[in-house]
Amino acid sequence: MRVMLTIAYDGTDYVGWQIQHNGLSVQQVLDDALSEFFKQPIHCQGASRTDAGVHSLGNVAAFDVDTRMPAEKIAFGINQSLPRDIVVVDSRQVPEDFHPRYGAREKTYVYRIQNSDFPDPTRRLYTYHYRHHLDEERMKRAAGYLIGEHDFTSFSSIHAQTKTFVRTIYELSVERVADEIQIEITGDGFLYNMVRIIAGTLIQIGSGLMEVEDMHRILNARDRGEAGPTAPPQGLTLVQIVYN
Amino acid sequence: MRVMLTIAYDGTDYVGWQIQHNGLSVQQVLDDALSEFFKQPIHCQGASRTDAGVHSLGNVAAFDVDTRMPAEKIAFGINQSLPRDIVVVDSRQVPEDFHPRYGAREKTYVYRIQNSDFPDPTRRLYTYHYRHHLDEERMKRAAGYLIGEHDFTSFSSIHAQTKTFVRTIYELSVERVADEIQIEITGDGFLYNMVRIIAGTLIQIGSGLMEVEDMHRILNARDRGEAGPTAPPQGLTLVQIVYN
Repeated sequence: MRVMLTIAYDGTDYVGWQIQHNGLSVQQVLDDALSEFFKQPIHCQGASRTDAGVHSLGNVAAFDVDTRMPAEKIAFGINQSLPRDIVVVDSRQVPEDFHPRYGAREKTYVYRIQNSDFPDPTRRLYTYHYRHHLDEERMKRAAGYLIGEHDFTSFSSIHAQTKTFVRTIYELSVERVADEIQIEITGDGFLYNMVRIIAGTLIQIGSGLMEVEDMHRILNARDRGEAGPTAPPQGLTLVQIVYN
Repeated sequence: MRVMLTIAYDGTDYVGWQIQHNGLSVQQVLDDALSEFFKQPIHCQGASRTDAGVHSLGNVAAFDVDTRMPAEKIAFGINQSLPRDIVVVDSRQVPEDFHPRYGAREKTYVYRIQNSDFPDPTRRLYTYHYRHHLDEERMKRAAGYLIGEHDFTSFSSIHAQTKTFVRTIYELSVERVADEIQIEITGDGFLYNMVRIIAGTLIQIGSGLMEVEDMHRILNARDRGEAGPTAPPQGLTLVQIVYN
């Protein structure tokens, strides 16, 4: 049967989701644990290839396995074999043609910025500390330009290889919660580094280094060089992936 | 001059505040960094001897130093020499008779419980994951018995050596924030493990293993054996210490 897993992880100590030669990946740890658990070689396909240091509350993976164990029980079983920074929070049987990446209808990410004089060491691994004051009202207005279907070339890493740069952002909110600015973004999909470049650009605007209206100009320019820097990975968390 | 530091730290990788022989303490790291920074031997006196794994947003330490640097600048300077899990968030000159422990008027701690089926790996170092449902209304009612001046012998570790077990709790709130239960407690001082034993007892009551009214009985018993278990350290954060 094909099984879908929903996976939360602390990305701090991993090279990212995808298996790589330069260090340990979440996918590798999961594959190893599943293969050991089921006593057969298991290879997961992931929905989102999160980068090194990026966290997840709801990444999705699927794999095929020959077992009589009810799919719902796999989460509880496999967590015993996983390190504490990776937790399978849901497991269920899915149709044989389910594909975690191509079947995804929408994804939600949050980018957290700690905006204060000194970094809070207990949040250093999960937020980007930014010292200069950020005006969240400016960031909200700038975010409005990005909502809807657009060509997001300006917000895609130059390394990105993709057929189309057109994506749809359904929601993009900026909220201040105490000393934290939280950027939450939901869309039908995201280009490589897209959320982190949007966050980096919103930070430029919030700090006054760019104007609110610059966001409109940057979007139309279709040029990565016009947008702000890529915000650091640890502020980013993949929150949820929705399927049809 | 005598200098007061306010110190935030992630207690995960330390044996606690106090210098010990079995591993690295926050105090040791701070003493070493200050001694190196000022080119003279510095020894900090801390306000609160937090245990291994316990965090701080506002522990206080004081030390004497011969320097012409304005005290306010020390925080910025010393942070360059500290690891990222220890941050000095304030530095100021204080009178020569200032003592961080004996001068403290009140302290505030928060104990965070993640109450859900699966632990969130990005909060595993800062919360106690408790799977069974906790009824925060029961916890709130039980907490009410502890507010005020009482003999807290029942909530003190058997290792505690102290003249009196009488302490005053000014505030004790229990709030649910999404899947997290946050116990915030302010008092004139706390016995060894007192906050963690109170948290452990409130958890017993919230889960139905003890009754709300048991809190009254436990308090009057003056017997550590009557209270609940000591809740694990990582859920505890020292938030603030107030001086006259």
